[in-house]
Amino acid sequence: MVTPSRLGVVGLGLIGGSFARALREALPGLHVTGHDADAAQLRRALELGVIDAEQTPQAMAADRDLVLVAVPVSAVADAVAGVAVANPELAITDVGSVKQPILDALAGQGGLPTHYVPGHPIAGGERFGVEAADPRLFRGRRVILTPVAETAASAQAMVRGAWQAVGGVVELMGAEHHDEVLAATSHLPHLLAYGLVDCLAGMEDRRELFRYAAGGFRDFTRIASSSPGMWRDIIHANRAAVLAALGEFEQTLATLRGAIEADDEAALLATFTRARAARERFLELVEKPAQDG
Amino acid sequence: MVTPSRLGVVGLGLIGGSFARALREALPGLHVTGHDADAAQLRRALELGVIDAEQTPQAMAADRDLVLVAVPVSAVADAVAGVAVANPELAITDVGSVKQPILDALAGQGGLPTHYVPGHPIAGGERFGVEAADPRLFRGRRVILTPVAETAASAQAMVRGAWQAVGGVVELMGAEHHDEVLAATSHLPHLLAYGLVDCLAGMEDRRELFRYAAGGFRDFTRIASSSPGMWRDIIHANRAAVLAALGEFEQTLATLRGAIEADDEAALLATFTRARAARERFLELVEKPAQDG
Repeated sequence: MVTPSRLGVVGLGLIGGSFARALREALPGLHVTGHDADAAQLRRALELGVIDAEQTPQAMAADRDLVLVAVPVSAVADAVAGVAVANPELAITDVGSVKQPILDALAGQGGLPTHYVPGHPIAGGERFGVEAADPRLFRGRRVILTPVAETAASAQAMVRGAWQAVGGVVELMGAEHHDEVLAATSHLPHLLAYGLVDCLAGMEDRRELFRYAAGGFRDFTRIASSSPGMWRDIIHANRAAVLAALGEFEQTLATLRGAIEADDEAALLATFTRARAARERFLELVEKPAQDG
Repeated sequence: MVTPSRLGVVGLGLIGGSFARALREALPGLHVTGHDADAAQLRRALELGVIDAEQTPQAMAADRDLVLVAVPVSAVADAVAGVAVANPELAITDVGSVKQPILDALAGQGGLPTHYVPGHPIAGGERFGVEAADPRLFRGRRVILTPVAETAASAQAMVRGAWQAVGGVVELMGAEHHDEVLAATSHLPHLLAYGLVDCLAGMEDRRELFRYAAGGFRDFTRIASSSPGMWRDIIHANRAAVLAALGEFEQTLATLRGAIEADDEAALLATFTRARAARERFLELVEKPAQDG
């Protein structure tokens, strides 16, 4: 397994910070430098020992053997390009929740860097910032890599090795397929949770709705406590796939509405029963330790 | 505080079983009898000591001082009427998630019993059955009572006292208002969770979506593991209010779709930011101990 000895992390939020802490635990002797546009985050990362030293992305290009870009989706392409231009042979990866738009943006800026390996760990939470960094965040979690034909094998091996070292289960997938899958399983649920809370807040004045919401509502809307700016970026970047997934859901909702209007109790029961069985299958998948593929 | 000394529970599921266990802990010496249409549930309730003895609802009418009806919404009116006819002076309450249709059904069957106090504890979970009964289920939880002008004060005092004894925070509300509030905060979220899981399950064959769903999806869809039959009953009984809440949500969704199609990032950010702030207010309400009102 190829692993880095000098890691650079651009963007010291929950994911960047957790990756730095996890890789440091897995690889004693690893040297970690970091950069963040927010000086307070950077200082906190140093104080917490998440990184050994501050370093600009340009300086990382000169002396690192792996750079992880963990900035918001809208800033990934520029950050990757900045490092790759300075050192085209350096393995670079990212953690953006959307992949094809990043590849498109890089291709439009003079070609996709050959040593950039697009990546996305299926992990996270509604907490954010380096304070929330958790070295166990990626254990047993799938990490999707979406390399293209030109992506250097050496860079792929380095990125795969680093993710495996922190407990991730690496899978390869096409970037467009990734974006479709995540639109359905992650981006659409976030949109619905934000939408539901905002809808109820709009009805709130006259009815004090939130006083009478219970545990089910709290869990259903947990993801509506996620970072609004991060999710604005993700939905924007993946809007075609999100609209397609939303369209499928609108059809489901229209069918449910029709069943309620027609007082078709059999149709409601059939939908709820199918959904419950599907969720049990999902839980089995989640609880079964993921296999490297 | 008026409390019962001889409790009868009709329907020994999660709520009926939890109420029996909680009231028994709160009131040493309480004698509890129970009934369930499912002989296995009834036997299990006896084995677990949730009830002291089996008793038919007719027999409860003769020697109990409080009867709790904890059967599915579709069966509440008949169960209440059966007990009330046999003993019109006996305090009876229920736990149905929908209230006005039960009042309407009883009014249509020869008049609303004066000692029936309609009730609904805002508590529960996706687990069900007497095995899941938890004596702490109602601590600090709101319990909504929706009496009418004719409801006997003595019965209200008995029902209020019993809920307070198990830690519930009692509030009075009109039945229609209750049904509107719960349609928005509980019934609509269940419909959306069932709908989303069913929608994704329909897309699943070609995309293996569930392999790539994470913790956010698990929490968002937890309520889709609830009892399909119970929720078919609730949505059916409250369909007018559910359709109204669904209509408001469809408008929110249409607005969000418009913002995504127009690539209006400011509108998305504004919605997500408002929703996040509203959820923080909701969490404060949940974490602050409820006050009796």
